[in-house]
Amino acid sequence: MADKILSISRRTRSTPFSRRVEAAGVKGYTVYNHMLLPTFFDSSEVDYWSLCNDVQVWDVSCERQIEVKGPDSERLIQLMTPRDISKAVIGQGLYAPLCDENGGVINDPVLIKFAPDDWWISIADSDVRLWARGLALGYGLDVEIFEAGVWPLAVQGPKAEKLVTRVFGDEVPGIRFFRSKMLEYQGRAMMVMRSGYSKQGGFEIYLNDPELAEPQWDELFEKGQDLNVRPGGPNLIERIESGLLSYGNDMTMAHNPFECGLDHFIDLDADIDSISLPALRKLKGRHEHQLVGLVFDELMQLDGFEIHHDGRVVGDIRSLVWSPRYLRHLAMAMMKRDFLSQHQSVSIDGKTGKIVDLPFDFDAIM
Amino acid sequence: MADKILSISRRTRSTPFSRRVEAAGVKGYTVYNHMLLPTFFDSSEVDYWSLCNDVQVWDVSCERQIEVKGPDSERLIQLMTPRDISKAVIGQGLYAPLCDENGGVINDPVLIKFAPDDWWISIADSDVRLWARGLALGYGLDVEIFEAGVWPLAVQGPKAEKLVTRVFGDEVPGIRFFRSKMLEYQGRAMMVMRSGYSKQGGFEIYLNDPELAEPQWDELFEKGQDLNVRPGGPNLIERIESGLLSYGNDMTMAHNPFECGLDHFIDLDADIDSISLPALRKLKGRHEHQLVGLVFDELMQLDGFEIHHDGRVVGDIRSLVWSPRYLRHLAMAMMKRDFLSQHQSVSIDGKTGKIVDLPFDFDAIM
Repeated sequence: MADKILSISRRTRSTPFSRRVEAAGVKGYTVYNHMLLPTFFDSSEVDYWSLCNDVQVWDVSCERQIEVKGPDSERLIQLMTPRDISKAVIGQGLYAPLCDENGGVINDPVLIKFAPDDWWISIADSDVRLWARGLALGYGLDVEIFEAGVWPLAVQGPKAEKLVTRVFGDEVPGIRFFRSKMLEYQGRAMMVMRSGYSKQGGFEIYLNDPELAEPQWDELFEKGQDLNVRPGGPNLIERIESGLLSYGNDMTMAHNPFECGLDHFIDLDADIDSISLPALRKLKGRHEHQLVGLVFDELMQLDGFEIHHDGRVVGDIRSLVWSPRYLRHLAMAMMKRDFLSQHQSVSIDGKTGKIVDLPFDFDAIM
Repeated sequence: MADKILSISRRTRSTPFSRRVEAAGVKGYTVYNHMLLPTFFDSSEVDYWSLCNDVQVWDVSCERQIEVKGPDSERLIQLMTPRDISKAVIGQGLYAPLCDENGGVINDPVLIKFAPDDWWISIADSDVRLWARGLALGYGLDVEIFEAGVWPLAVQGPKAEKLVTRVFGDEVPGIRFFRSKMLEYQGRAMMVMRSGYSKQGGFEIYLNDPELAEPQWDELFEKGQDLNVRPGGPNLIERIESGLLSYGNDMTMAHNPFECGLDHFIDLDADIDSISLPALRKLKGRHEHQLVGLVFDELMQLDGFEIHHDGRVVGDIRSLVWSPRYLRHLAMAMMKRDFLSQHQSVSIDGKTGKIVDLPFDFDAIM
């Protein structure tokens, strides 16, 4: 299948970094939350090694921040997620699936209690704002809900801490994982969190002034020259090796958090008012599918995504990539649990793939 | 700006027609409702002449149908739109903006009363399903809301009626504009409506069985050979010449329907319960912007979308295209009304553009 051009319009929104991203030679985009997300600059594989060895700057403006503000903000956020948020600390990121009344996953954002009665939902690719506003209106809640004027820039890779420290100062190394500090950039306070969509370490800078986007981008590249800083984006190889889920790919509204292995983020026993908890309490242990890893030694060709066994569909491939590090084909697949209870492998295109737990344990696999 | 590749994954969903679209040589896509929408096969201009002279088949599966079913379905739909839907006829399409409590446009779908207590919302690019589900839960409405297993295929162009008649039979010509009939295809009843996102005439076939997608695509191409049938997609040149609005491009949630010239679809005096009506009644006549057409004789270069005059921003370009028929640069722009009341033209890049009403009246312009 030959490469296809993305037709860009105002509907596929640009970001305050787009001119720099273009100048840096972006080759591919995807569209995420109605916004351009750069996917690769050289090739997925070259970008992968740069991310794993050095440091990259990613325009992840498309991680839109849905801000929920007002006296009922915490109540609304808690209605939306089955994770207990009552002990959230200001400036802390909480990975928290949002689930509907059937337990289906609406989104899997990072929640940030930005200030008392002021929450940010750092969303994956679905219009959470619309769900939140529908709920708020229907329940008569006293909140304002809007897309904040914030465009996250991620700095990822083993040398990220060094680079971000050079730009934001000595407070950076003291920031713990999924915690943040408000740090000054050209006289303006911005949230800097130790987070990001890779397992190579790094930070996300929540840029809140579009005028500062280009100066910030330029400064990161100037100060990172000796660190081999490169432009990048969420990298398919790295994120699958690391077992990071992608909403819309590995899971959808048709799946519940147990199927996605998100049990740890569901507080079934908490005394909280959350839309999905009644359904999730019933579903626990009875869910039909499980997201697992598949490992193939050889390249195989997909003809559609369904996985068949003995004439029936037993699951489907959600994400797939060739790992240049492990020299394996790695997939995430949503498989029927009754099949999993009886099988340790699947067959696709005549090739056998080993079924493993997520995240991949390469010591055990290799 | 060089062309960029679209990175395709399961999140950018394929359709039942995708294999045929690929085989037909699609060159560009956009992402619409988290789904691939083919944008061009030859070039935008070559595709344009084919659409205007002959007939095209478009995979517009991304016009997702949000189905709202149950005793409270009409009540929910009416809450969402300020257009009075009480007199809707089964099988009729109603273009109806959905608006929030501030009057902002959430989407501009075609509503279809499919059966009593069973509505389809044929949506533009935003997750209307999430808003509807939030409202339904909050208001305690007895409805089911889901994305229907329906993938529209559009047949557009002056020869569309001839082609659709060859496939669906003699009842086709009797279908009036924005009306539909349930017609059989290989033993299965499908809705066929006289509608589509062009002004060249045509139909939309609401395919409801993915297994029939490829046979239907193939039959349309076989029976349309002598009509010069070509694959296509919503065409930027044609839709701007025709003044067809695009949600996310020409208007967003930040705009109200008066600003978009949609006054005709707002029933301000109706005795209906609709979320946006109180706000819209106050806004009428006081809205700040107006969507207008701009006509430039010469090509101009955009540096950003904002339009400046005397040191202030007086509007912004929303869509822009070169018309090979009229040899003019045509834009849709959201302009400040106080500027419009004093000016008949704008200046961009040193070129003067005439301000005109939408849709463009080319007899008056030329």
